Amino acid sequence: MKVGIVGATGAVGRQMITCLEERNIPIEELRLFASDKSKGIKLPFHDTQIEVRVVEDGCFNGLEYVLGAVSNALSKQYRPMIEKAGAVYIDNSSAFRMEDDVPLVIPEINGEDALQHHGTIANPNCSTIITLMAVAPMNHLSKITSIQACTYQAVSGAGKQGIEELENEIQGKQAEAKVFPAQIAYNVIADIGTMLDNGYTTEEMKMQNEGRKILHLPDLKVTCTCVRVPVYRSHSISASVVTEQQISIEDAKNSIRQFDGDVLCEDTIPMPIDTSDQDLVYVGRIRRDLVNDKGLVVWCCGDQIRKGAATNAVEIMQYLNAH
Amino acid sequence: MKVGIVGATGAVGRQMITCLEERNIPIEELRLFASDKSKGIKLPFHDTQIEVRVVEDGCFNGLEYVLGAVSNALSKQYRPMIEKAGAVYIDNSSAFRMEDDVPLVIPEINGEDALQHHGTIANPNCSTIITLMAVAPMNHLSKITSIQACTYQAVSGAGKQGIEELENEIQGKQAEAKVFPAQIAYNVIADIGTMLDNGYTTEEMKMQNEGRKILHLPDLKVTCTCVRVPVYRSHSISASVVTEQQISIEDAKNSIRQFDGDVLCEDTIPMPIDTSDQDLVYVGRIRRDLVNDKGLVVWCCGDQIRKGAATNAVEIMQYLNAH
Repeated sequence: MKVGIVGATGAVGRQMITCLEERNIPIEELRLFASDKSKGIKLPFHDTQIEVRVVEDGCFNGLEYVLGAVSNALSKQYRPMIEKAGAVYIDNSSAFRMEDDVPLVIPEINGEDALQHHGTIANPNCSTIITLMAVAPMNHLSKITSIQACTYQAVSGAGKQGIEELENEIQGKQAEAKVFPAQIAYNVIADIGTMLDNGYTTEEMKMQNEGRKILHLPDLKVTCTCVRVPVYRSHSISASVVTEQQISIEDAKNSIRQFDGDVLCEDTIPMPIDTSDQDLVYVGRIRRDLVNDKGLVVWCCGDQIRKGAATNAVEIMQYLNAH
Repeated sequence: MKVGIVGATGAVGRQMITCLEERNIPIEELRLFASDKSKGIKLPFHDTQIEVRVVEDGCFNGLEYVLGAVSNALSKQYRPMIEKAGAVYIDNSSAFRMEDDVPLVIPEINGEDALQHHGTIANPNCSTIITLMAVAPMNHLSKITSIQACTYQAVSGAGKQGIEELENEIQGKQAEAKVFPAQIAYNVIADIGTMLDNGYTTEEMKMQNEGRKILHLPDLKVTCTCVRVPVYRSHSISASVVTEQQISIEDAKNSIRQFDGDVLCEDTIPMPIDTSDQDLVYVGRIRRDLVNDKGLVVWCCGDQIRKGAATNAVEIMQYLNAH
């Protein structure tokens, strides 16, 4: 396979390279792209060093897939160039996720949607991926009608600069927040994304908007509160899930246990320190919703740079390649 | 007034002393009690130093009130001694909260319940106090039928040792967790209290059990997830609140604005770094519940050592003294 990565030097980009290595995907050529300020940087891939390039006319020619780990603005710039070169663009940004022609895919849940692409496939939002990985097994048993979710999102969700800001603040080296709306060290911030008129943030609305598309549930209702916490890596989410028919706790556990990509935690509790640097989503604390007897409550945790971003994108590529 | 504090050298005990000072309560005598290992310690009160004593027979004689900041086990030991001395026991522990004869009180919400005491009044659970302070204004407008809550609880909720464990881990001085079930630095732990058969922890069930008693809503249903986060001070809670009739966002905001003890945040977002070391509960992010149009969602934050414990106890005492 001939693969390109745009945004290769960022947290997600670097993770994509690692995922390609780990899965021993037969790569004939890996082309890495980054901004001008990363010029000259060489990144390791197996036993070679690959020098990053800038994006310019014709730079994608010959590639079959391009994985995107760049901002929405850059993604909008690169997409036509990638499609023109005939490569399939698997994009982590939120630029195209809700477009009708663009599949929005978590392979274990709706992999087949990827086959409908018209050149671009979108990778969903990180906390949405992790939450849906946890609740999709229940959707198999009975249609989900609503979700109440509260997130506990790691700082690396804002990239390398998010990690540095927390580090600096802990070490007393930074007095004023630049990346986050306020100090994140020893604090929690219920403000991720941009505030909308309905009082929710863009980050919070993703869980409903993207959830509907991925689960094929156009009437799914999701109330979400997204909160940044002083954790480096791995997002955690508490989710109350109501289904059309009541699902027993045993049935839910069995479904999660059998669900590819999930780990059922029965005697342990999913935590960032355990889920970081691996690809599975840990799901535990499964119990009855005391407010609604057709509801179950779960606690899930996953590495949002991996399954929440890089790994999911690589898995989409592997899915396409296999079908 | 002649007041005693048991557990005077702990985080909550010390805060109680500070609250008494700040409110300029006319104290004729303040007697401070602590365990044998605190022997000889002197704690400042206004311009005096008070030496802590151990609890022994007759030690409460002459006191009108005793504020309790000790464990359940010690509280069970001290309560009969305090009642025998004729003092009113205002207890922070969870030992007696659900007893029929023991009022469970947040003065701004159900202060009058305190007047029914038979010698002991219980101070509610910290995250329950902060959540109820945020939602009680809505209960005034229309009866609350259910709450879905997710907490973000600070380490000082586990006392001084909780603070030290986080500090030590951050400084690389502690390899193994002793106070919390796992490392808390850069982690979140959805495990506070003891696990019950229904899959909830004792900490989580408090919000329903104590909420019913304080709000006088015996049928209130509460689904709660309690999570420890690496924050030193102040608990935060996201709460989805469903009421019998729909409450408009404007009406909810006005009710919170007028509610004694609350601060309505309209253009700002409640955060631990802002609410620590003061007594009010900050309530913001008020918006419609997208799952239920009779529901509203709020984000609240409060200093759990103050309003969540010490301040609330002192306020109960002030309430009794005034009525």
